[in-house]
Amino acid sequence: MSEFWNKKINEIEPYVAGEQPKKGEKVIKLNTNENPFPPTPMARVILRTCDVAELRLYPNANSQDLLEAVAEKEGVKPTQVFAGNGSDEVLALCFQTFFEKEHDTALPVLVPEFSYSFYPVFAKFYDIRTLKIPLKEDLKLDPEDYVNTPNCGIVIANPNAPTSRSISIEDIKRICQGNADSVVLIDEAYAAFSDPYETAVSLLSECPNLVVVRTCSKSHSLAGLRVGYAIASEELIEGLYRAKDSFNSYPVDRLAQMIAAAAIKDAAYNKKCIDQIIATRKYTEDELKKIGFSMPKSSANFVFAKPPAGIDAETLYKNLRSKGILVRYFKTAGINDRLRITIGSQEDMEKFIAAVKEEVSNAKDS
Amino acid sequence: MSEFWNKKINEIEPYVAGEQPKKGEKVIKLNTNENPFPPTPMARVILRTCDVAELRLYPNANSQDLLEAVAEKEGVKPTQVFAGNGSDEVLALCFQTFFEKEHDTALPVLVPEFSYSFYPVFAKFYDIRTLKIPLKEDLKLDPEDYVNTPNCGIVIANPNAPTSRSISIEDIKRICQGNADSVVLIDEAYAAFSDPYETAVSLLSECPNLVVVRTCSKSHSLAGLRVGYAIASEELIEGLYRAKDSFNSYPVDRLAQMIAAAAIKDAAYNKKCIDQIIATRKYTEDELKKIGFSMPKSSANFVFAKPPAGIDAETLYKNLRSKGILVRYFKTAGINDRLRITIGSQEDMEKFIAAVKEEVSNAKDS
Repeated sequence: MSEFWNKKINEIEPYVAGEQPKKGEKVIKLNTNENPFPPTPMARVILRTCDVAELRLYPNANSQDLLEAVAEKEGVKPTQVFAGNGSDEVLALCFQTFFEKEHDTALPVLVPEFSYSFYPVFAKFYDIRTLKIPLKEDLKLDPEDYVNTPNCGIVIANPNAPTSRSISIEDIKRICQGNADSVVLIDEAYAAFSDPYETAVSLLSECPNLVVVRTCSKSHSLAGLRVGYAIASEELIEGLYRAKDSFNSYPVDRLAQMIAAAAIKDAAYNKKCIDQIIATRKYTEDELKKIGFSMPKSSANFVFAKPPAGIDAETLYKNLRSKGILVRYFKTAGINDRLRITIGSQEDMEKFIAAVKEEVSNAKDS
Repeated sequence: MSEFWNKKINEIEPYVAGEQPKKGEKVIKLNTNENPFPPTPMARVILRTCDVAELRLYPNANSQDLLEAVAEKEGVKPTQVFAGNGSDEVLALCFQTFFEKEHDTALPVLVPEFSYSFYPVFAKFYDIRTLKIPLKEDLKLDPEDYVNTPNCGIVIANPNAPTSRSISIEDIKRICQGNADSVVLIDEAYAAFSDPYETAVSLLSECPNLVVVRTCSKSHSLAGLRVGYAIASEELIEGLYRAKDSFNSYPVDRLAQMIAAAAIKDAAYNKKCIDQIIATRKYTEDELKKIGFSMPKSSANFVFAKPPAGIDAETLYKNLRSKGILVRYFKTAGINDRLRITIGSQEDMEKFIAAVKEEVSNAKDS
């Protein structure tokens, strides 16, 4: 509390990100869904050869080369792409652009009850009402819930986090077409890891109210570089530029623009990394099931696993932490019986499985 | 206009940044106050030797090493520093944290009539009322105007842009102490170029309501990297973290954190560049005066010059543009008789002066 903070700042509850290890601390980091592989080899080439003196000049305000790389890959126009400082910034600007602020008649934004916990924080920060829609059995999202509830907008992560479950492109189409007056935001932070690969970008020509948001953090191993983007109709993208240019003209720096564009162009390397993560996910799911864990089929680079009977999720989280293995535990009622485990390298996951086996065995002995 | 944009986005007038030349276009760029010198040589060392694989990991959320570098240099605690994605982002978060939103009784934020034109854009975007305080003769800012006007906050660029004029630290102290209930934001984007050097950071121990905002863009030749920061009491800085963590947890990427910290530590190189810019500014002022221009004494890395009688500022701007020399012209009544000219390299300024002489001579002949 401070008399110098305004009412809003005194009232909000900021988002709490996953733990980052201290400098030099050696851990197996499976708690913030980072990619275990280095970024495209072109990142090194760029950093080793770029013209350092050019850092004195402002970057391209809209990240033009990056927009073109995304447009080329996705089969859309560069004017249908908007780049920002991580998908968190892009998401925040979407909330500020497409959803109505609170007043007596404002309808809520619909979000799944268990999803990226930043969504309700954005909504609160920008005075937008939120309505959390409960998930069904085993954390399944029912698209019908989003068609029959009055709203000023809809935000769905697909695949959802922390649940790891995805809905079909047909379901997304149904939600868009059932809400023709609202913007439907599909957060595809984890879509690259769906198998078979599916993206709502394929719906853009039929759904003028659809915005797809992506990040290079997970799929392209660039969490450290802060690049995200939105793909939508030119009309919706223009709205995002109006918000950006009322807030920060140059959100993506020169190095980030170059490296992200190169990463997106290097589709072959990207596929190789993602295929390996999907294979390691299968290994992890299989091994966890053998030990008695249960979990929905994951379409993301993490699993959301419930420990076997008699093993408390929070205790397991703490015991793994003390062994130098970080996973994510949420205290939230309804999901506090599970752990969200990022799929790391095959080697890290083998160590993780060995540690979990030890914990389960210890718990049974005691 | 779009039915999918909310009311705010349909109504706003976004900020328009200075022109950026097209890729490959050769110009003398004196329109966006960039530094003519490359950044610290350490920037090259970092880019050529950094561990590229680490880009896969999230950066430190608060830019800890950068906070420590700033704190060390400024003689404050790291908890008194807040880093963001360019000072534009830091300024935007200050508006969201310290100033009251519009309601029936909300007082306005005071800003100088002619100043950074992003301030009223931020205010409008965040529903904060603005009151523009007229400048006095020759664009001089009178501190008394800010002591006697009810407000919910004050924003002053010192030195001011585009006027290039500064006010004294005593004046800032008077403004802070005369507004004990409001936050006073001093934007020191250009303070490094004041001669003798002065900073409001020296007032922090006496003024709990003072926030000083800086950018590495101009003083440290890092416009392309997007790093800015605020220095204030721990209480005010904590408010900025609450805003940041409601908007974007990781605003500064790994490379930007490393390079900005190195730039701030390299005080000797920084002084050399700034001394040269101050010397070239003197050259530019002297030469422009010889041709009949008038201007206030500049404390910034630009001059705000009125052409001699008979020379129209807008025409001169356009004619210089056609010669490949970019300067900044504002159509705003009250300052549309001047040009804002960035101090580039000595060589660029000699070319600029030669071009201006030619234009003035042509105008007299015709």
